[in-house]
Amino acid sequence: MHIRVILPVIGESLLDSVRREAEAWAAPGTTIDCVSLERGTASIESEYDEALSAPGILQRIDEARADGVDGVFITCFGDPGVHAAREIIDAPVVGGFEPATLTALSLGEKVGIVTVLPNVLPMLNSLARRYTIERRIGTIRVVDLPVLGLEDHDVLLNRLFEQASDAVGKGEADVIILGCTGMLGVAEELKKRLADKGFDVPVVDPTGAAITWLESCVRLGLTPSRTTYMPPPAKDRAV
Amino acid sequence: MHIRVILPVIGESLLDSVRREAEAWAAPGTTIDCVSLERGTASIESEYDEALSAPGILQRIDEARADGVDGVFITCFGDPGVHAAREIIDAPVVGGFEPATLTALSLGEKVGIVTVLPNVLPMLNSLARRYTIERRIGTIRVVDLPVLGLEDHDVLLNRLFEQASDAVGKGEADVIILGCTGMLGVAEELKKRLADKGFDVPVVDPTGAAITWLESCVRLGLTPSRTTYMPPPAKDRAV
Amino acid sequence: MHIRVILPVIGESLLDSVRREAEAWAAPGTTIDCVSLERGTASIESEYDEALSAPGILQRIDEARADGVDGVFITCFGDPGVHAAREIIDAPVVGGFEPATLTALSLGEKVGIVTVLPNVLPMLNSLARRYTIERRIGTIRVVDLPVLGLEDHDVLLNRLFEQASDAVGKGEADVIILGCTGMLGVAEELKKRLADKGFDVPVVDPTGAAITWLESCVRLGLTPSRTTYMPPPAKDRAV
Amino acid sequence: MHIRVILPVIGESLLDSVRREAEAWAAPGTTIDCVSLERGTASIESEYDEALSAPGILQRIDEARADGVDGVFITCFGDPGVHAAREIIDAPVVGGFEPATLTALSLGEKVGIVTVLPNVLPMLNSLARRYTIERRIGTIRVVDLPVLGLEDHDVLLNRLFEQASDAVGKGEADVIILGCTGMLGVAEELKKRLADKGFDVPVVDPTGAAITWLESCVRLGLTPSRTTYMPPPAKDRAV
Amino acid sequence: MHIRVILPVIGESLLDSVRREAEAWAAPGTTIDCVSLERGTASIESEYDEALSAPGILQRIDEARADGVDGVFITCFGDPGVHAAREIIDAPVVGGFEPATLTALSLGEKVGIVTVLPNVLPMLNSLARRYTIERRIGTIRVVDLPVLGLEDHDVLLNRLFEQASDAVGKGEADVIILGCTGMLGVAEELKKRLADKGFDVPVVDPTGAAITWLESCVRLGLTPSRTTYMPPPAKDRAV
Amino acid sequence: MHIRVILPVIGESLLDSVRREAEAWAAPGTTIDCVSLERGTASIESEYDEALSAPGILQRIDEARADGVDGVFITCFGDPGVHAAREIIDAPVVGGFEPATLTALSLGEKVGIVTVLPNVLPMLNSLARRYTIERRIGTIRVVDLPVLGLEDHDVLLNRLFEQASDAVGKGEADVIILGCTGMLGVAEELKKRLADKGFDVPVVDPTGAAITWLESCVRLGLTPSRTTYMPPPAKDRAV
Repeated sequence: MHIRVILPVIGESLLDSVRREAEAWAAPGTTIDCVSLERGTASIESEYDEALSAPGILQRIDEARADGVDGVFITCFGDPGVHAAREIIDAPVVGGFEPATLTALSLGEKVGIVTVLPNVLPMLNSLARRYTIERRIGTIRVVDLPVLGLEDHDVLLNRLFEQASDAVGKGEADVIILGCTGMLGVAEELKKRLADKGFDVPVVDPTGAAITWLESCVRLGLTPSRTTYMPPPAKDRAV
Repeated sequence: MHIRVILPVIGESLLDSVRREAEAWAAPGTTIDCVSLERGTASIESEYDEALSAPGILQRIDEARADGVDGVFITCFGDPGVHAAREIIDAPVVGGFEPATLTALSLGEKVGIVTVLPNVLPMLNSLARRYTIERRIGTIRVVDLPVLGLEDHDVLLNRLFEQASDAVGKGEADVIILGCTGMLGVAEELKKRLADKGFDVPVVDPTGAAITWLESCVRLGLTPSRTTYMPPPAKDRAV
Repeated sequence: MHIRVILPVIGESLLDSVRREAEAWAAPGTTIDCVSLERGTASIESEYDEALSAPGILQRIDEARADGVDGVFITCFGDPGVHAAREIIDAPVVGGFEPATLTALSLGEKVGIVTVLPNVLPMLNSLARRYTIERRIGTIRVVDLPVLGLEDHDVLLNRLFEQASDAVGKGEADVIILGCTGMLGVAEELKKRLADKGFDVPVVDPTGAAITWLESCVRLGLTPSRTTYMPPPAKDRAV
Repeated sequence: MHIRVILPVIGESLLDSVRREAEAWAAPGTTIDCVSLERGTASIESEYDEALSAPGILQRIDEARADGVDGVFITCFGDPGVHAAREIIDAPVVGGFEPATLTALSLGEKVGIVTVLPNVLPMLNSLARRYTIERRIGTIRVVDLPVLGLEDHDVLLNRLFEQASDAVGKGEADVIILGCTGMLGVAEELKKRLADKGFDVPVVDPTGAAITWLESCVRLGLTPSRTTYMPPPAKDRAV
Repeated sequence: MHIRVILPVIGESLLDSVRREAEAWAAPGTTIDCVSLERGTASIESEYDEALSAPGILQRIDEARADGVDGVFITCFGDPGVHAAREIIDAPVVGGFEPATLTALSLGEKVGIVTVLPNVLPMLNSLARRYTIERRIGTIRVVDLPVLGLEDHDVLLNRLFEQASDAVGKGEADVIILGCTGMLGVAEELKKRLADKGFDVPVVDPTGAAITWLESCVRLGLTPSRTTYMPPPAKDRAV
Repeated sequence: MHIRVILPVIGESLLDSVRREAEAWAAPGTTIDCVSLERGTASIESEYDEALSAPGILQRIDEARADGVDGVFITCFGDPGVHAAREIIDAPVVGGFEPATLTALSLGEKVGIVTVLPNVLPMLNSLARRYTIERRIGTIRVVDLPVLGLEDHDVLLNRLFEQASDAVGKGEADVIILGCTGMLGVAEELKKRLADKGFDVPVVDPTGAAITWLESCVRLGLTPSRTTYMPPPAKDRAV
């Protein structure tokens, strides 16, 4: 099975760590490759960034289709370009939000998300409503760190723990989701710290949830519905 | 008052008729100007088209901000780029969907939308959920004509009437909205035909609803909330 | 354009200030006149008051119809008599709640309302559900002043600011609505105080929202749907 | 126990049959008396009628309070004046809609209502939303007879059966509610006809549901919550 | 009228007090008898307990059908076995949750429930969603006492008062429901204590609500809908 | 990885085919074993059957815990015993409904389910509400065959195709779910027949969805939240 990971930002400095993380979650026999964008933004932290990155993402989707990949992970928690992508490729496509939240629904009553900056809260609330799962989202919190400031694991873990334990303690969350696909390699440690405090709740890593989601879809023979995701009519396009 | 109309497609052939239509709805004292996109698609009939047109729209928003306009109408019923735009300009910005549907809510119980092609139905359903008004949308129908095939008023009116009268007759609509900003100059005639059949229901023209909405916001001193539409953080952007 | 403002209380002492306020929001060319009730209550602060004022309001609607006015504003935030009125006049009719909240939905995610007394909270919650927008109402607060005790602008502004800034600070509101049409001439100053505290959120004045809403409907040729608001059957009525 | 039935229309011709019907449903030991209005309309078939009847109803509530009754049934399916009444009397008050629909929820999945005229559909939809039970209302149908034309039991039963059996057959109703308190003495026969057709579904008579609801509340010591139904502040009232 | 109370636990020590409590709420002429289970658990405080008690409950339902009882109360607030029971008996069947919450909806805006242990909160939230009334449940609190530890009325009342007064004070409840049918004989005293603090809100006893609900259904001739509660097909069953 | 499949019915005749089907969906390295119940019913087609089978299922869960399995699939589309099971085992547990529907949500707008008999429709509607996904379920249809009558693939496929193609054609479904885990080995052929008719929609097999769901949870280290699924308190239990 061949999964293409699209890192929807410009620059190649993060490609290696993103690919390694995706490979760590993948099943034996799954081939992962990873591309970033030619055109787009350095990170996605607003509707503005998301809009600017969309054409660059769709260019990568075009290539993925040509390459005959089996599934595509657009590695950003805001699911940028996901629905447009499904219109033009016969393979499952997910971002970070949808597989993580749907997975979480089977684990507990209220889902708590801890993301990066307050700027993205309206975007995530909009996604929750679009997917009609807003009544199960108990809280969306922030660590107040930009996407490009997540590399210090100690700071990140401390802030994640602070928000997650407060959310669970107040009854606002029964499952915690890491709300940014850039929060690499901290899910297990966060789960352990929460358990030490007496909060035995699952922690969902969005990259892991996305990779396994795609693998499941491929094994189940599932691709986007063509009555929902109709192929775009032919016309002039100059982008 | 200065309102900028952004026609979110490439090409300039439609600019004159769009500007004339907007001017026809505008109040005395409102100045309308109209621009199309440098980069984008010939029409918007899918999530794919919408995504491809977003950067071109945001470029025009940047110019609108620099020009100090009082309000912006992105003239497409799918509200492309609207939320991203609100993050970067201190003036009200609307597309076609939001002002037309909110206006309709004050006129009757169930709102019926008649749009162009089945391709855009999921997009409109998603907007309805995003705006949390989905329970009032009684039906979304199509005339099954592409955006660029709406110029024959007789065909368009016949199909609009067919769908709208069926929807009202079945109790699925109490107010009709023209679901494409390219359906110019047919609202009044459609209303008359419906009334002749005994269906005395209002018909909302999305261009008219958008222009008057913006004028009202400007007069009321209302601009996008900065706790919802936070300014995007500074970063590299290459689009 | 001729807009009739119905002040749905007995007594004429407030008529002048209400008319002046409405005129201040009206467009050039709009004629405003203003009437109060022969029968009703001194103010509306309960379902009881609202019910008692309804026949007096409908008598004024009858006159407005006879006078051929273009639109009617029943100037109370509880929308008293609005839906009954729409059954008997072919012109747009609004109260204070509906145009203010629908306008607010286009400006930010969560709407916060600051009204007069706790007595009216259930009435406003019921309206929000009737209009199916309850999921967007983040909070409804009170200044704990009766309608007839709003004339001291300093006290009113201080309490409005206290509630509004607390609501925005806690993430319960992105847009503030003045929840009583008797809170005249304080919207701009409240917005300024909030901005000084770092909360750059719009403040919607319900009188302004209602007047511009009616003007827009008149210009758009929109009147109440006769499949929702059917004319009442003929019968004996002794009121 | 003393229950006051308020027939919210002018005229006394129906008082006897309404009182007899209420007495037929009442428990031994319950005293029923019945009053109509001094001011109001001959029947209630619109928001307009409902608004005009409200002060006359509230005058009767005032008297009921003075008389120390234990519960009040305002015998109309539109629940006119019910919420205002609860603000001014320490006894349970219901109309026809609320007890019938809440009772029906415990009997089957989808509730089907068959009422009189299309004019009242928006009013009933609004009540369903106000009471937040709209998702369980599978259909609201009409017999297309005015309130004052229900006395021919054969015609009424035929039309009720036609609508109810169609609704059950199409899966839109598992429980049928008679949607007008003037549909006296037909519930049992309708249930029998439906059973003969193979539709073994309960039929709720709104008068019976209201009388037993009030009796239950009185026995349970339950009166309106004063945090929801606060007493109206003192003020001038001229109605 | 003959009502069978099923105490869905093993052991007979509580039978007398449960029967006396049910009889105290019953109308003159209602015969109450009371049985516990042969197989089941000592109390129900989890989905696990509820599942284990179901066959024992259904055995009692079979007997109730054979005995020709008029109604059945399964006296547990989690409504165990209620929906399965309705499939096999032509008489109304309720648990503690449904009649108490539906009754409460007619008394105030937000319903507050105070139950025993945090273990049952997800079960109650699930019931609220199943019955589609979750939007009216303002809060569900616990006294943090097990079902078999409720006999000390002073401790129970203190904890009920603490939670209920906090809920009302914070605007999370306008009506209080005792969230365990084992909280016998404390509703009136709790109501008094709340009133002394200035919170004039109704307190619903679930046993009283259930008994009067069944009596009303019997008098109204209402039994479970057979399009919702279809008789189970014949087959081998070995339980 | 070791997955235990619990076939929640009595009798062993189906065990082999169920195990083979589960193994066919499993990843290399996953060990599947399969048990049926000592106590229960021959099939599950009602709330009654579901309730009777619960203790037998929980006995198997106890054994699964003792055996240290990594995940449990209770192979029935009604999710019997699933939530009780999660309270007593530290491994992911699913039935057929939840993983199939959550998977379907990522593939198209409206989910259509085709199940066995009308008897189970209320049960499935209740599950949809419990999981808060009811707004995405466009239709639930039946093939009108009992669980033990599904072995004739031609009849089954014809009826599945009839219902599924009608649902897609009417716009009520964009994704089809086989609504019984006994509909073995027909998903692919149904998808092909729908595609031949021009309906290019995914068909979700609930067994496949469940097995891959469990495998994903195990790989992601996810087990039931202990703030939602609290361990049942110790007490006497005699089942």
